[in-house]
Parts: sequence; structure tokens; C-alpha cells
Amino acid sequence: MSKRLIDHLIDYVKLDIAPFHTPGHKRTSGTYDYLEKISYRCDLTEIEGFDNLHGANGILKDAMIRASEIYQSERTFFSVNGSSAGILAGIRAATKRGDDIIVARNCHKSVYNAIELCGLSPHFIMPQRYNPFKIYGAISPDDVKNSIKQYPKAALIVITSPTYEGIISDIRAICDEAHINNIPVIIDEAHGAHLGFLDKSIENAISCGADIVVHSAHKTLSSLTQTALVHANGNLIDVDELEWQLSVFQTTSPSYLLMASLDGCIDYIKYNKENAFEKWLSNLEKFEQMTKNLKHLRILKYASDTAGTHPAIYKFDKSKIIISTNGTSLNGATLASNLLNKYRIEHEMSLGSCVTMMTGMGTTACHLERLAEALIEIDASCKSAVNNSPSLIFSDMPYCAIPIEEARLASTEPVRLEQAEGRIIARYMWAYPPGAPFLIPGEIINGDLIKFISESSVNGTALKHNGKAFDGNIVVVKHK
Amino acid sequence: MSKRLIDHLIDYVKLDIAPFHTPGHKRTSGTYDYLEKISYRCDLTEIEGFDNLHGANGILKDAMIRASEIYQSERTFFSVNGSSAGILAGIRAATKRGDDIIVARNCHKSVYNAIELCGLSPHFIMPQRYNPFKIYGAISPDDVKNSIKQYPKAALIVITSPTYEGIISDIRAICDEAHINNIPVIIDEAHGAHLGFLDKSIENAISCGADIVVHSAHKTLSSLTQTALVHANGNLIDVDELEWQLSVFQTTSPSYLLMASLDGCIDYIKYNKENAFEKWLSNLEKFEQMTKNLKHLRILKYASDTAGTHPAIYKFDKSKIIISTNGTSLNGATLASNLLNKYRIEHEMSLGSCVTMMTGMGTTACHLERLAEALIEIDASCKSAVNNSPSLIFSDMPYCAIPIEEARLASTEPVRLEQAEGRIIARYMWAYPPGAPFLIPGEIINGDLIKFISESSVNGTALKHNGKAFDGNIVVVKHK
Repeated sequence: MSKRLIDHLIDYVKLDIAPFHTPGHKRTSGTYDYLEKISYRCDLTEIEGFDNLHGANGILKDAMIRASEIYQSERTFFSVNGSSAGILAGIRAATKRGDDIIVARNCHKSVYNAIELCGLSPHFIMPQRYNPFKIYGAISPDDVKNSIKQYPKAALIVITSPTYEGIISDIRAICDEAHINNIPVIIDEAHGAHLGFLDKSIENAISCGADIVVHSAHKTLSSLTQTALVHANGNLIDVDELEWQLSVFQTTSPSYLLMASLDGCIDYIKYNKENAFEKWLSNLEKFEQMTKNLKHLRILKYASDTAGTHPAIYKFDKSKIIISTNGTSLNGATLASNLLNKYRIEHEMSLGSCVTMMTGMGTTACHLERLAEALIEIDASCKSAVNNSPSLIFSDMPYCAIPIEEARLASTEPVRLEQAEGRIIARYMWAYPPGAPFLIPGEIINGDLIKFISESSVNGTALKHNGKAFDGNIVVVKHK
Repeated sequence: MSKRLIDHLIDYVKLDIAPFHTPGHKRTSGTYDYLEKISYRCDLTEIEGFDNLHGANGILKDAMIRASEIYQSERTFFSVNGSSAGILAGIRAATKRGDDIIVARNCHKSVYNAIELCGLSPHFIMPQRYNPFKIYGAISPDDVKNSIKQYPKAALIVITSPTYEGIISDIRAICDEAHINNIPVIIDEAHGAHLGFLDKSIENAISCGADIVVHSAHKTLSSLTQTALVHANGNLIDVDELEWQLSVFQTTSPSYLLMASLDGCIDYIKYNKENAFEKWLSNLEKFEQMTKNLKHLRILKYASDTAGTHPAIYKFDKSKIIISTNGTSLNGATLASNLLNKYRIEHEMSLGSCVTMMTGMGTTACHLERLAEALIEIDASCKSAVNNSPSLIFSDMPYCAIPIEEARLASTEPVRLEQAEGRIIARYMWAYPPGAPFLIPGEIINGDLIKFISESSVNGTALKHNGKAFDGNIVVVKHK
């Protein structure tokens, strides 16, 4: 009970576990001098000569200009409150109360929070499905087109790309369709701050014309956890309003340590493209070579192999290693715990039959070799089996009975999962990670969902409901 | 243009300037082992064995329990998005759209942001005035009582105490009055995380019965910038809803470095009360002895000297050193620049004729001696003079013509300050620090305000308007 957090952290680091999770700097020593220099000794504030993040016009303004130059955006803002603050600010800047917005149903919960905060009417688009891995795929531009036809006055479109599993949508086509109708597009590219750098054949959402793009710089690049970049382009977004809303959702005491890590990361990318991206890519290619003969475990292949050949995958982000246990006696959770306990390799997410390993700018050849060798060994001892891991993908959305806000404000009661069929859920439910709600307030709980939730619980998937670990009770709207 | 932020920070630190500004750890080496240990090498995330800040049930839950034990609160939550997130979450958890709330007019801008976000009807209480220093004083419990009579259905009362200048209101009397009427109270005690520890004669707002108390731990204690504590007590607040709203306004990737600094600070307080507070207090007392014979500069005296003897000061926070230049040829800005340029002493805020020097847990005897000696020298060379520094205190509130939200959403135009009389302002205006708006959207700009704004501009007070440095243009609601 009384061990300090700092001692937990220090003790963990001593274990020398290979990190295939965020942050992207991977705690790799000796590479990032600006990270080495970060300490409480330079934990300063807005004193003489320093700048104010909110309305910057000095050294922070300069730093944000440097970031926009690297990304070729018109404006770039720092966030010290993660991509979450960027999403909240972007959506609030682009909408007014009561507006219709078109939203991919697999968005992060911060998008749902923004919908509630801003009093918006969401119209959801279901992502396509990539059944071989039982994961969601890309958002189809045709689905966006149809949604715009249905809601031509939509104030905004919000899409997540890449997904947590690295699947990229055709953002250019989506933006073109939106812009014909004068609708701005926010791309939650939290997982893709490296797009356009790591693999030249994949553009980022800025190049594709998105109006606001949000990057979790810490996820795959080399800034500290909790830092993000928010880019703005074009004239469909009021950039002053975006800047204002960013100040609403971020502390008035932003950490210079976090901001210096963001700026250091941008500077590193500018002057060390080879170290930052070329080595990372060639290490990934070596990993692919090493693991290409796996017999049981399957790895969602890089880029061109899958991309384009399946309608649910427009492109694939090479930085993600997605391992499927389908057809084996393992599931995602057992594979992940095997990797950790036997091989000291930590994953990012296990969900259903899949495990997501995240690489980042700091991932070393040594980390990847360790992972490849572990997978080869596990694969060799694997057995074929029918695997019924529950999956988080659904072909249909649950039926929405009442708006989110109405459900959130209604009188509620807890019911046991088994008794919840037909009831209106009053709080979100999601697995974390990825943190995209599969049930949102106002939706009706059906039999399929009950089956999925109960199977997930026994399969080690960490479900969250009502802001807490799911305990078998579901908060539903009280019968009148 | 291309010097990195990290290099700006490192270069500044080399100057060995005595820090009388936030953060409270004052970058003092050798005292806080947990701060020494903080580096990117332990920048981890929610991996196996670690915990999720949002719905914590492991090591973070334990850490937050330790914090609540120290503060004797019922529940305590960490914030990695400053007190701002605590204020937003607290207000949103306690209110519904359209609710009346009673608010001290000198609140921080995050309170105004919450009012807008939540669609509330604010009813303001003007603080009392302490004319000898031309600063706002305490909120009178009688004024709160009268406001409750006028708005008996108010959902919430929000008060800032201590103020930026260290003036504490009678929170116990205010809470008693509110609770008789079943109205919860949020105290923005951002500047008073040390209250109840530094000086046993001053209780903090938790002891006084406030329902939610927000502490910027970084301001006066020894955690990293951007960290805060949010305490909840009593049964007028739905703590589950507060916890949920904290997750809305904070990133889903909270920094373990920031959280470890908060936890380390709590642990330090628990086991090192003498080092943490007794030395600090005795150093402050020595400083008072050294400076008691100043002839021109006046220091807002500690605790009992002033408290109680003037109706505008209920109690005074000893950690703040407030220096008035009234009656001298200096103003706040010139005194502050003199301290910096000649004595290498950095202040927290200069406003009108006052300079605020903030001490913190990390302030050393040496820092305070340096300040005392500098003040004695400056005082000796001071001349008596009529000093007309503009002051940020007003006896009356500007007239409110339309609600905040209506003004924010209206068509606007910029007008020059000189032409703004009688117009409705459409964006906030404040000096930063302190960051409390003196004009809010929907209010009418009168001649006194124009005079104040133009005088402030020439006196070196940093005014912000429309999220930027004030440039002489005011954004007003367009004539229909």
C-alpha cells in the first residue's frame, strides 16, 4: 500500500522488459539528448523571456512554427493534455449546439465526450470489417458520401485513422467528398504521427486535405507521454476559435518539460530523418523476414500485401505488429501473458484473438529480434484449434432509443448483465485499450451484446463501464 | 528562431535566478529524491501492474488514498491537467444545463469556461476591496447569504480562496450558509495546497467543509508543474460523476512522471513535515524581521497583523509576499524588472502597483535573504511620489447586457479601444497572471474600463483579449 509510484516505475525499468507499447521513445538511452536533459531542474513556468502556450507569441510560437514546417500544416498547436484535448477543442471549435455531425462509430471516447459537451446530434458510420482478423477496417468513402446525402447540413465529419490496429482509411477521398459539401473533417490520427515519414508511400491526413489533424506525438514519436500536436488547414475551420478552445481544455500551467519534449522531438525529426525513420523501417523489414514462416500465428502483413486487396483495408500502418491467434489454442490475452512472463516483452493491447504490438521511433533492432524469436518459439509449440475468442466488431450498431444526453441525465438503476436485454444503457461501455465505446448511453442492449460482454469478461478483456472496471452490473435507464 | 525549448530552459537555469514564482519545488537540488529520479526512463503507461487514472483500482488508487489521508478528505483525485481540469470537472459534475450558480467575480478563467461549457446562469458576487494595496479582498459571507436569498435554487457556489494575493475568505461561514440551503460549494484553493500545514492557525477549505476543493499542488508544494489534487467531501456532490468528469477533461494518456511527482510530494509531506513546512515558516519569519523597517515599499503583513483588522481580509496566506509600491516613484512592473535585472530575482506577478512574490516548499533561506536584501536596498533609494498605477479592482461590475454564450456566438467586429464605449464585448479580457477576467462576453464597456485598459497597456501589465495579447482592438458584438 505504501510503495511510492516513483519506486514502482524505477523497479519496473530494472526488469529490462522490451516495450511494445506507448510511449514511442521506448525509454531508449543515448538517442535523444533533449530527453536526457529533461528534469525537474528545468521545470519552469511563464517567466520573463518564456512564453504562454495560450496565445503564444515568443519561444513557444516559434516552436509551434517549427512543428508546422515539419508537417507542412498551416498552423500547428502543442497539446499538453494529449490528443483528447485536441479532439475536444477541434469539435467544439467547428460546431454549434444542436448541429448534426457525422462520426465513425469506432472513434475514441473523447469524441463521444465532445458530442455530449457540445450538445451535438451524432450520425454514425460503421467501419468496414476485416474478418480474417475479426477487427474493424477502414471507413468507406462511399459510406461517408451516403451519410452526407442524408445529413447535408452536417457541421463536421470525425474519423479515426489509423485505427488502433493500424488500418488507414482513404482520407483524401473522404475529405474531397466532404469539401464539395463545405463540411470540414477532423482526423483523429493519434496513432499516426509518423505517417508520411516512416513510409513515403503513405501520406498523412494533413497531406490528404483534412481540416484538423490530431497527433499523439508520444505514441509513436519520441516526446513524453501526454503530448500531442493539433494541426489546422484550410478555411473551413476558424483557427482563432480552435486556439481558444485548446486553451479551454488545457491547464493554464502547462508543463515546460512536456513542451520541451515535443519541441525536441520535432527538432530531432528535422535533423535526424535517417536515425528517426529509416532505421526503424529497415528494422521492421528485418522483423518481417524473420517471422514470415510462422505456421499458426498470423501477422497482419505490411502495407502492400494486404492493402488494396481487401476492401476493408485501404492502407496499413507498418509500425503496428498485429498478431492474430485465430485458429490456434491461444487467445490474445494468453499470447500476451506468455510474451510477458516467458520472454519479458510487453504488448500494447490484447483484444479477442488479437495482440497489438506497437513499435515507435525508439524501437531498437534488439527489441524486434527478441519479439521475432519469441513468436517463432511460441508458434512452434502452437496447436491448431477452433478459437472462439469474442471480437469487438459488430456488423450492426445497437439500436439507439434516446439521445446520449437524455440517457446520461435520466434516473438510472444497476441491473445484472443477464437481466439487461432490452434495457437502455445509461453509461458508456468500452474495452481499454482501445477506448472506443461499443455501447453508448441511449442504446438498447441486445442478446448479442450480452453474449459478447460475458465472453469478454471471462477472456481477460478489460471492460470499462460507468468509468470503472466492469463488475457485472450495467447502469440502465430506470423504467418510468 | 531555431533554439530548442530545452536549451532555453537549460540556459535559464544556469543564470541562477532566485525563483519567487511557481512551481513550489523551486528546482532546489538534493531535497526531493523522487524529483531527482524523474526522467524519461520511467515514462511508462498503463501496462501490466500499473494502473489507469480513469477508474483507478491499483497503484494509482492507493496513491490517491494516501493523498486523501494527508488532507483528511473523503476522496482525493489526481489531475495531470492542472487545477483547470478540476474546476471544469467539479462544476460540470455539480450542475445541469440552465442551472443558476453563484460565483465570485474574481474567479479564474477556467470557472468562466465551465459556465459556458455547461450552459449555466452565473450570478456574481464582487469581492471586497483592500484599498491600501488596491487589491481585491475576501468574499463576504453576508454577500453569499444575500445571493442565496436572491437565487435559492442555485446549484452551486464557486469561490476562489486564497486569491492570487493570498487573501483568504471565511470559507467555514460560507459553507455553513450554503449547506443550510443544500447548496454545494467548490473552493478554488489552487494557491493554498499548503494551507493547514504551513501555519496551523489557518485551516484549509476541506476542514472548513467545502464539498469540492481544488489544489494546484505544483504552485506551493513540490510536485511538477501541471499537477493538481481534487478533493471531494460530503453528500451534496455525486463523487462518481466527479470522477467521470475528471476523465472527460484529462487525457487518456496521463503522464506517470507527473503522477509520480504528485505521489512523491504527498509521501514527502507525510514523513518530512519539519523539512517541508517548519523551516519554510521560520524562513518566512526571518524574512519578516529583515524587512520590517522598510520606509517606502510596504509588504502585506503576515497573518494576524492585518487579518481581522480590516473587513476585506479574513485571513492572509503567509506564503505570499505582496509588495506595494503605492506612494513611491516605482510601479509594480518597474520594481519587478529592477529585482530581475539588478538582483536576479524573478517574481510571479506584477499588477498595477503590486508585485507578488511566491514562496513554496522549496524556497530556501538563501532565496529569502537575497530578496530581503534587495528590497532593503531598493527601498533606501526609493522616493515618495504620487503613484497612479492602474488597479484591477473595480467597485462595481460592468453592466451585463446579454448572456455570455449569446455574446460569444454573435456576429462580431473589432473596434479600437477609444471607440469601444457603450459596446458589448464579445470575448473575455484579463491580465495574466492572475487570469481572472475583468470583462466577460456580454458586458458593456464603460469609460472607466477604457481608461483602465489604456493605462494598463502603458504600465506594462500584460492584458489578454480574445485569447491573444491585447493589441488595442476590442472584439465587440456587431450592431444589428
